[in-house]
Amino acid sequence: MKAENRIGYQTVEYKNKPLIAAYACAVGPREGQGPLGDQFDLVAQSPEFGQESYEKAEAALLREACHICLSKAGKGEKSIQAMLGGDLLNQIMASSLAARELKIPFLGLYGACSTMAESLLVGGMLCDGGYASPLLCTAGSHYATAERQYRYPLEYACQRTPAAQWTVTGAGAVMLSLDENSEKKPRVRLVRGCMGRVVDMGIADANNMGAAMAPAAAATLCAYFDDTKDDPRSFDRIITGDLGMVGSELLLEWSEKLGHPLPEEKMMDCGLTIFHPSQDSHAGGSGCGCAASVLCAHILPKIERGEWKKVLFMATGALLSPTTSQQGETIPGIAHAVVIEGVQE
Amino acid sequence: MKAENRIGYQTVEYKNKPLIAAYACAVGPREGQGPLGDQFDLVAQSPEFGQESYEKAEAALLREACHICLSKAGKGEKSIQAMLGGDLLNQIMASSLAARELKIPFLGLYGACSTMAESLLVGGMLCDGGYASPLLCTAGSHYATAERQYRYPLEYACQRTPAAQWTVTGAGAVMLSLDENSEKKPRVRLVRGCMGRVVDMGIADANNMGAAMAPAAAATLCAYFDDTKDDPRSFDRIITGDLGMVGSELLLEWSEKLGHPLPEEKMMDCGLTIFHPSQDSHAGGSGCGCAASVLCAHILPKIERGEWKKVLFMATGALLSPTTSQQGETIPGIAHAVVIEGVQE
Repeated sequence: MKAENRIGYQTVEYKNKPLIAAYACAVGPREGQGPLGDQFDLVAQSPEFGQESYEKAEAALLREACHICLSKAGKGEKSIQAMLGGDLLNQIMASSLAARELKIPFLGLYGACSTMAESLLVGGMLCDGGYASPLLCTAGSHYATAERQYRYPLEYACQRTPAAQWTVTGAGAVMLSLDENSEKKPRVRLVRGCMGRVVDMGIADANNMGAAMAPAAAATLCAYFDDTKDDPRSFDRIITGDLGMVGSELLLEWSEKLGHPLPEEKMMDCGLTIFHPSQDSHAGGSGCGCAASVLCAHILPKIERGEWKKVLFMATGALLSPTTSQQGETIPGIAHAVVIEGVQE
Repeated sequence: MKAENRIGYQTVEYKNKPLIAAYACAVGPREGQGPLGDQFDLVAQSPEFGQESYEKAEAALLREACHICLSKAGKGEKSIQAMLGGDLLNQIMASSLAARELKIPFLGLYGACSTMAESLLVGGMLCDGGYASPLLCTAGSHYATAERQYRYPLEYACQRTPAAQWTVTGAGAVMLSLDENSEKKPRVRLVRGCMGRVVDMGIADANNMGAAMAPAAAATLCAYFDDTKDDPRSFDRIITGDLGMVGSELLLEWSEKLGHPLPEEKMMDCGLTIFHPSQDSHAGGSGCGCAASVLCAHILPKIERGEWKKVLFMATGALLSPTTSQQGETIPGIAHAVVIEGVQE
C-alpha cells in the first residue's frame, strides 16, 4: 500500500485543503517600529512584556498570540484538539510554558527557525488526515533569550558582525480546521507541504546563518518543483523565513545551480521585510518568530484579501547548538515548506 | 467536518493500523550489563563509542540504531519517506546530526523523555494518513551529555540524590509502514494514540523527575480510558517510559484519585527494567533512550512472539530546562501514548 497523499520524494498533498480559520501574532517594540508595525495584532511596550525574565516574556508572547487567535475564531481552548509548536530556547521552554497554561494536547517540535513551517506542515497532515481539527500551529522567539543562549548576553554589549541577523521578538499562531461552515470569504487554505532534509555545506560561522541555511532552502524548493512539476512562476510569492541579505542571494545561486532558477521578482524574505534598514539589524531579522509573525501580520492577510492567490511559504532552520559549534561541527540546515492558496468560493 | 479519526478529547485512531515493519536499538556498556543485555542489537564497548565527544557518540548511537533498523527491513535510506525524532540535547543536536548523515526528510520533535512515544504517535498519524510510508520513528539519549547539560559534568563527581534517575545511553528506531506484503507473522501494529497535555503539579526538584511526570502520566492514561472506554485490564501491559521507583508509585495514586485505578500487576516501567538494582542507578533509568531501547529490545519482540497481544506504551517527559529551573519555575510534565497490538493473521 502506497502513501496515497505523497507526491514524489518530499512532498505531501493535503486532499481536504485545511482551512486557515484564524491567525494572530504578538511582537516586541522593535518589531512594532518596523515597516509592518501597524499589522501586528499585539505590540509589547517593552521586551520584558511585564514578566520577570526574558524567557517568561517569550512564553507570554506566544500564549497571547494563541489567545488572540482563539478569540478571532470565537473558540475556547477546550475545542482545540492539538497545539503544535516550538521555539529556540533550550528544551523549547517557551512553548512548553505556553502549552501548560493553554492545556491543549501539545506536540513539541524543533526545527530552529524553520519551526513555523514545520508546525504548519505537520499540523496540515494531522488536520487533513482527520486526527485533529481545529488545531493550532505556533512558533516564537525572543531577541534577548536567543542572544544569551546562542551568542552573548545583551549586557556584554558585544559588537555584531555584518552578516549577523537580528532574532525577532515575536510569536505567531495559525488555526487549521476542516470546518466547512465558515462564512468568511475568500478562504485561505493549505494545499501542499514539503518536508526538508538536513543539508550541510560546511559553513561553521554561527554569525552567518543565512549562508548555512541557503543550501537547505534550495534543496527543499528544488525537491518541491521536481516532485510536483509546479512552475515557480505560478506563485505570487515564494517566501523564505529568514535567509536575510546573505542567504537570499545564495538561494538564487544554489537553485540555479540545481537546475531550478527562481523568479527573482517573486522572491520575498521575512527577515528582510520585518525591519527598516535604518533599524540596524544588519543582514535582517531571524528566529522562529520572524517567519511566524510576518506570516500572520502580512502574508495571510494579503492572501485573504485576494492580493496574492498562491504562495509558497518556506522557513529555514540552522540546526546549530553552542555545544556542537564549540566542538567544531559545521552548521546543518533544514527548510520545510507549505503551499497556501486563496480560494474564492 | 469533524476529525474522523479522533475519539474523544485526546485520542486518535489509526484506521489502517500501521505495521511495525522493523525496529532496532543501540545502547551503551552499562545498559549492556543490565538485565536486557543480550536483547539489544548493539552494545557499545565504551560510552565514547569511538567518537571524540559524548555528543557525537549520542548521534552515532542513534544513527546506528537507524542503520540496523533499515538493514533488518532490507531497505535503503532513499526509500524512507520521513524520519521523526528528538533527544535531550539542546537543539536536539544528536538527532539533527544523525539526520544529516541519513539524508531522510526530517521532522525534529521535542518531548523530553516522552519523545519516543511522541515520535510513534505523530509518525503513526503520518503513516496512517498516507503522507509517509515507510517512515522511521526515533529517539535517543546519553548519560554523559544529559548530566553535563541538566546537572553537572561527570568530571565533578557529584553525589546523586536517592530520587535521582540514571539517563540511559541508548537509542531506538522503529519503522512504520502501510505495506501489506510483508511475509512476517505475527504482525505488530499501531492501533491508537493519545496526545498528552502539559500538566504541572508544582514539583520543582530537578532530581525528582518521576514525581514531576507522574501527574501527566495519570492525566494521559485517564484521558485515554475516558475517550475510548477501553478496559485497563484488557492490556497485557501498561508500560511507562521512565517514571522510576518514585513516579511509578505516584502514578497508581494519581490514577486512582482520577477515577481510573490501574491493574498493578499489568504495570511496567522501562526505567525499572533496564538496570539491575545492583547497578546503583537509584530510582531507575530515564531519558528518551530508556523507553526507546526497552521498546525495541524487549517490548516489541514480546508482542511479535505472541507473549503479549495488547500493550499501551506511554513515555513521560519532564519539560524542564536548567534556565527555567534557575528562574524558579516548577517542572511541567507531559505523557504521550500509543497502543500496540500483535495481530495473528
